[in-house]
Amino acid sequence: MPHFVSLDTYDVRFPTSLELDGSDAMNPDPDYSAAYVVLRSDNSDAPEGHGFAFTIGRGNDVQTAAIAALRPYLVGRDVDAVLADLGGFWRELVHDSQLRWLGPEKGVMHMAISAVVNALWDLKAKRAGLPLWQLLAQLSPEELVDLVDFRYLTDALTRDEALEILRAAEKGRAERIETLLATGYPAYTTTPGWLGYDDAKLRRLCQEALDAGFGQIKLKVGADLADDIRRLRIAREVCGPDFPIAVDANQRWDVSEAIEWVSALAEFNPWWVEEPTSPDDVVGHAAIAKGIAPIPVATGEHVQNRIVFKQLLQLDALSYLQLDATRVAGVNENIAILLLAAKFGVPVCPHAGGVGLCELVRHFSMFDYVAVSGTMDNRVIEFADHLHEHFVDPAVVRDGRYVAPVLPGFSATMRPETLSDYAYPDGPIWSGRQ
Amino acid sequence: MPHFVSLDTYDVRFPTSLELDGSDAMNPDPDYSAAYVVLRSDNSDAPEGHGFAFTIGRGNDVQTAAIAALRPYLVGRDVDAVLADLGGFWRELVHDSQLRWLGPEKGVMHMAISAVVNALWDLKAKRAGLPLWQLLAQLSPEELVDLVDFRYLTDALTRDEALEILRAAEKGRAERIETLLATGYPAYTTTPGWLGYDDAKLRRLCQEALDAGFGQIKLKVGADLADDIRRLRIAREVCGPDFPIAVDANQRWDVSEAIEWVSALAEFNPWWVEEPTSPDDVVGHAAIAKGIAPIPVATGEHVQNRIVFKQLLQLDALSYLQLDATRVAGVNENIAILLLAAKFGVPVCPHAGGVGLCELVRHFSMFDYVAVSGTMDNRVIEFADHLHEHFVDPAVVRDGRYVAPVLPGFSATMRPETLSDYAYPDGPIWSGRQ
Repeated sequence: MPHFVSLDTYDVRFPTSLELDGSDAMNPDPDYSAAYVVLRSDNSDAPEGHGFAFTIGRGNDVQTAAIAALRPYLVGRDVDAVLADLGGFWRELVHDSQLRWLGPEKGVMHMAISAVVNALWDLKAKRAGLPLWQLLAQLSPEELVDLVDFRYLTDALTRDEALEILRAAEKGRAERIETLLATGYPAYTTTPGWLGYDDAKLRRLCQEALDAGFGQIKLKVGADLADDIRRLRIAREVCGPDFPIAVDANQRWDVSEAIEWVSALAEFNPWWVEEPTSPDDVVGHAAIAKGIAPIPVATGEHVQNRIVFKQLLQLDALSYLQLDATRVAGVNENIAILLLAAKFGVPVCPHAGGVGLCELVRHFSMFDYVAVSGTMDNRVIEFADHLHEHFVDPAVVRDGRYVAPVLPGFSATMRPETLSDYAYPDGPIWSGRQ
Repeated sequence: MPHFVSLDTYDVRFPTSLELDGSDAMNPDPDYSAAYVVLRSDNSDAPEGHGFAFTIGRGNDVQTAAIAALRPYLVGRDVDAVLADLGGFWRELVHDSQLRWLGPEKGVMHMAISAVVNALWDLKAKRAGLPLWQLLAQLSPEELVDLVDFRYLTDALTRDEALEILRAAEKGRAERIETLLATGYPAYTTTPGWLGYDDAKLRRLCQEALDAGFGQIKLKVGADLADDIRRLRIAREVCGPDFPIAVDANQRWDVSEAIEWVSALAEFNPWWVEEPTSPDDVVGHAAIAKGIAPIPVATGEHVQNRIVFKQLLQLDALSYLQLDATRVAGVNENIAILLLAAKFGVPVCPHAGGVGLCELVRHFSMFDYVAVSGTMDNRVIEFADHLHEHFVDPAVVRDGRYVAPVLPGFSATMRPETLSDYAYPDGPIWSGRQ
C-alpha cells in the first residue's frame, strides 16, 4: 500500500507585467503566478499529483506557505484510502476547525485547499488513465453527490435534487463524450480586450479573433468611460453588429455607478457585463442585474465559495456563472457549483486565462456537458493565449473551440524546466531582476 | 524624521485546548493564538506599534507569514507621514492589486492588514498619549470619514450620510467621555457557556456570573438539541425567567435546521441567536431572522468585511452586529462598520474572548458611545476571562462593566515574556509538548 511521502511547494512567477498582458481596470500590472504543489508517494513508479493556486504576483509566497501548511494532513496517509474518499478528505480539510478560523472557506486557506484537492484529482485521474473530465463523467450520480458537501446549500439544493439532475443526464453520456472528442467545446477570447493595448492593436486583435473562428470576444472596461465607448465602437466596427462582445469591469463600480456606466454602453449591446462590483455583494449584483436588464450580468472568478454562488442564484443576480478552478476548494466544490447552476438553469462559462486556468477549466465544462447540464447551448469557455507552453498538456483551441484533452490527469502539470526557471525569487528569470 | 526600520512577527500560541476553554459546536479544541506584529522606527526612544490577528491554532504560521509579507509596504517609510494619513495607507494595502487577488478583502490577507493597521493605530495613540477610543473620539467628523473607504458602500451609506451621523453625535461628546471614565460600559460573559463544561460547572459559573454583576450571559448551542435544552433549563433556573441569556450556534446549522432548532429553544426566551449559519450567507440569515422572529439574530465575528455587513443590514438579517477587532481590516474598517450600524439603527455588541479581543474591542464600543451612536442602550461587550494576564493593559471588568482603559495606545501590547514563553513551536511552553 503506497503512502504519501511528500508535499512539495514551488513559488512560480511569470513577469507578465512587462508586456501589459492581463491589464484591466483593477489589475494594472499582474505577474501571473502559481503557488504550485506536487504530491509524491513511496511508490516511485506511480504518477505524481500536481496542482496549483493561481495568483497575480505579490503574496504568492503567502499562498505557497498556506499550501505547505497542509502537509501534515496528507504525508503519511495511505494513497488508495485518500483517493477512494475524496469527498471525505475534502470535508476533513475544509472543516478542520482550526484552519477554518482563517476563512472560513475563503481566501488564502481555501485556495490552498483547492491546490491540494486538485492535485489529488490529478493523481486519481492519472492512475485511472483518463483525463479528469472523463473520469468524472464515468462516476455514478451517487458517487458524484458523495463528493459534494451540501452544508449551507440545502435551502437551494438538496442531495436528492442533485441526484435527480445527474440521473436525468445519464442518458446520452456516451454520445456526448463522442461529440466532445470530435468537435470540442466553444471558446471565447479575451486577448483583444486588455486595457493596456492601443487602438490599432485592439483592431488587429479583434480581426484575428474573427479569423481564428472565435464566436465571442470580451473587452475590459471601467477605467474611463470615453475610452470604453471608443474601444467598443472599434470592436463593433470590426466584428459587426450582432457578434457577441462581452465587457468586463473587474469589480470597478459601486451599484449606482455600474447601472449608469453600463447604460452608457448599452448602444453597443454587450453580451454580458462581468464583475460589475464587489464579488462579495450579492445584494448589489441583484440590484445591478435589475437595473441593467436585459443586459445580463456574469460573475464568479472572485466568488469565494459555493455559498456565495448559491445566493447569487437565489437572488437572480447573475445570468452567466463563471466558476474558477483554483479559488474555490477544488474539483469537489466546483461539482457543487455546477449542480447549483443546473438547478437554477444558469449556464456556466468558466473564468480562465492567467496561468494554467485554461488547462484546468475545460475539464469542468466538458464534465458539465457530459454528465450535468447535458448541453453546450449558450456556454463558452474563456481563452487567453498566454503561457500555455509551460504545461505538459496545454490547452488547445482550434477554430474557436477547445479541443478535448485526452492525456490522463487534470492537466495541471508544468514542465520541469518551468518550475526551476521561473522559481521566485531565485530562478534565472528573476534573479537578474531583483 | 523617523522612519520605520522593522516589522517583526511572532507566532504566539496558548495551549487552551487542554482546558476545553473555548469549546463550541464548531471549534472543539482551539489553541488561542496571535499572529503578532511589532513596528519599530529608527527613533529608539519612540513607542512601538503592536498589533495582532487572532486565530485558534493551526495556520497561525500562515497568518504570521501573511503579516510578514507586508513588510515592504512599511519599512523605510516616514512614520509621521504614514500616521498622518491612515486612511490613505489603508487604501494602499487593501487595494494593492496583486495582494487583492488573495481575497479580495477577506481571509488571511485581510486579517494580516488588520494586524498592521491596528499596530499603526496603537503607535499613533501612544504618541498622542491617549487610549485609542479617546484619540478617535476627539477627531472631527471630517477626519473620521477620511479614514473610511466608501467603495462598495454607497448604495447603503454615503460619505455625506456618515458625516451627518457623526455631526449629530458631536454634542455631548465630553459628557459621554466623563460617563465612560466614571462608570464604564456594560459587559456580558460567555464564561459559563462552553460546551466542554459539565452541568455542575455550568450551574456554578452561571451563579458566579450573577454574583459578579453581569447583566447578560451566553451559552453555546448546536451540537445536541437535548443537551441544549437541559443546559438552558439549568441556566434559566439559576438566572431567573427574565435575565438575558443569549445562545450561540457558531455556524452549525443550515437555514431550515436553524429555524427548527431555535423554535425548540424558544421556550427559554433566548436574548439573541448568534451565528445560526454560515457567515457568508446573508440571504440565509435573512430567512432565519424572518423564520425565528421575534427572537433576534446576532452575527459578525466571522463576517469578512464591511461589504457583507452592509448586506446583512440591507436585508434586515441581523438585530445585533458583532464586529471583530482583527478579522476586518482594522480600526478603519471598524469605523465604517460602526457608521453602517448607526445608519440602520442596529446596536453593535462586539465579539470578544479568544486572546486579546476583549482588550481591543472595548475601544470600539467606547468610541461608538462617545462619537457615533451616542448611546449604550441595548449594547454590551462580550467578555471571557481568559489570558488577560498576558497584556500590559489588560481588559478589566468590574461589577459587570468594562472599565474604560486610560493607558495610551490600543491595548494590543503583550508582555515581553509572553512573546518568548509562548512562541510556537520553540518557546518553553511548547518545546516540551511537540
